[in-house]
Amino acid sequence: MAFESKIKTIEWVDNKSRMIDQTILPYEFKTVDISTAEEMYYAIKDMIVRGAPAIGIAGAHGVSLAAIELSKTETDKNIFLKKLQEKADYLKSSRPTAVNLMWAIDKQMKLALEIDGSIETVTKALIENGIKLENEDIEINKKMGDYGAEVVPKGATILTHCNAGALATVGYGTALGVIRSAYAKDPTIKVFADETRPRQQGARLTTWELTQDGIPTTLITDGMCSYFMSKGMIQMVVVGADRIAANGDTANKIGTYTVAIAAKYHNVPFYIAAPLSTIDISIKSGKEIPIEERSHEEVTHINGDWVCAKDVNIINPGFDVTPHELITGIITEKGILRPNFEESIAKAFMED
Amino acid sequence: MAFESKIKTIEWVDNKSRMIDQTILPYEFKTVDISTAEEMYYAIKDMIVRGAPAIGIAGAHGVSLAAIELSKTETDKNIFLKKLQEKADYLKSSRPTAVNLMWAIDKQMKLALEIDGSIETVTKALIENGIKLENEDIEINKKMGDYGAEVVPKGATILTHCNAGALATVGYGTALGVIRSAYAKDPTIKVFADETRPRQQGARLTTWELTQDGIPTTLITDGMCSYFMSKGMIQMVVVGADRIAANGDTANKIGTYTVAIAAKYHNVPFYIAAPLSTIDISIKSGKEIPIEERSHEEVTHINGDWVCAKDVNIINPGFDVTPHELITGIITEKGILRPNFEESIAKAFMED
Repeated sequence: MAFESKIKTIEWVDNKSRMIDQTILPYEFKTVDISTAEEMYYAIKDMIVRGAPAIGIAGAHGVSLAAIELSKTETDKNIFLKKLQEKADYLKSSRPTAVNLMWAIDKQMKLALEIDGSIETVTKALIENGIKLENEDIEINKKMGDYGAEVVPKGATILTHCNAGALATVGYGTALGVIRSAYAKDPTIKVFADETRPRQQGARLTTWELTQDGIPTTLITDGMCSYFMSKGMIQMVVVGADRIAANGDTANKIGTYTVAIAAKYHNVPFYIAAPLSTIDISIKSGKEIPIEERSHEEVTHINGDWVCAKDVNIINPGFDVTPHELITGIITEKGILRPNFEESIAKAFMED
Repeated sequence: MAFESKIKTIEWVDNKSRMIDQTILPYEFKTVDISTAEEMYYAIKDMIVRGAPAIGIAGAHGVSLAAIELSKTETDKNIFLKKLQEKADYLKSSRPTAVNLMWAIDKQMKLALEIDGSIETVTKALIENGIKLENEDIEINKKMGDYGAEVVPKGATILTHCNAGALATVGYGTALGVIRSAYAKDPTIKVFADETRPRQQGARLTTWELTQDGIPTTLITDGMCSYFMSKGMIQMVVVGADRIAANGDTANKIGTYTVAIAAKYHNVPFYIAAPLSTIDISIKSGKEIPIEERSHEEVTHINGDWVCAKDVNIINPGFDVTPHELITGIITEKGILRPNFEESIAKAFMED
């Protein structure tokens, strides 16, 4: 049973990519129209759009925008394709950790190279495929939501970290998609949202989108999870993912790993919710996942204000890797993958 | 070997209690003079002064201030003592978790009741005892620092949570006292300071006082500790305490328990640094420690700005309890107490 969410995070409209500006939520709700590959690069890098599945679609739209631009000046198809590949590589370099970006851009480029037709035909196909991926994303999320809802205990309080919601996808959410589907079946469930420093995606985005949908949400700071687990106040954890290795090791927003360790200590089930496009079967373990080092200002500042002494050192990894042994299950559009993940992931891809 | 810190957090000056205003650090350095018991109640409650040992001294000063006030109007010693006890109880109610507050106020009241002399004599004795406790606090911290420094590995990076520093005591620090003593012996040690949401005492106070003293400090957000532990970048954790039960269970700033679980998972030694006055042998376990529920604004706001959706729920426990089985040792002025804590704590108090 799918809960209807009103949020549409990214959408192809009038040959532009329209997206909710996530840097100003929850203070202001505004959409921006992205019309070039360069604009898309910065929209991804500066996190106007964020969340692995959403930046996958952004990457796909970015290739469509690049094709539209190039089709205006290029007449030689080989040169067009060569320049398109350069733009695609440039878009891929906007953020290193989330594999959906690479997955979606590669899908577009494969299509561009396969189509036997004019530049115009290729451009049209890329636009259509971008819209197709956009629509599929919501369908995939709803399937994941339904699978995930089956493992949510009745009346559970579910903890989530960062934002793996409608705002991290086209419009339903991965971890929050599971929560939406569970809530549609059982309106007694509740959510605890980790604030998620730095950038506060939990405070800014998760509380915004869940309260928009009327789902009861309690905001907690990142250090509090263990306290509430020890009090028996959290029955399940579900988070999203930026990249999952072939053995189940999962990169997600920094702090996820700490929550996973706390969940293990308290025997609270810890689930990942992510589409198969987030699984990178080309890498054996989490050790091979590149971890993005982000701006120091994300730590030294909150909402533009300094929060610490000025001559302090900063290290700001954007992600951490939760080892597979801490993960109860990976909720995908093909069902819930269970340990041994090496086997269950391989099997899901064989069927794919 | 004791490192000299320039910070004097609380000090009896001209019959007033002078304290650093910790609500405006690191933005502004200002001292305030507290001249009545009522002012002291709010200085403690609003956290102008905070940290278990520092609020102990604040409580002692508060009783001295109450005695000075009462001595101006009361002539009957029994009524004076009765009213002094009322003020003492009122001061004790300012914050419930840190036991040093009760300990210091009880010390003052015991003295007041024991002294066989005039109201003036009692008042003078309370003032002198307040100053004595103040001076003893620094000496105790330096002893703890020296004991603690012995277990700091050469060149270690030490993680700390919240602020258990000069600013949490009269002037040297408990956890940061250990770090100061270790740094005096080995200038290659480094500190990772947890930001410590809500209230950011790590970001605001710990980075301020350590960088003032030239100790290399890296600020991290609360969720990051496990990431750095997994990379082998943290060799030890040392934190303060607000109350320790007879079995070693330790209440400290919310989030400490999460760090302790992460340390256990990575086999990183986890130490508490606290004077014996923080140990409450009247309670068997951490279950009996009252946990203060603090203002929701501490979570919904940072530096006066909203950080989340407006219709979110908040639960804001100020402290959590780290169970004794996660604690490697408790560094006190009588040496490092080791498990079994029930026995080692009882032994330390027998010698006391």
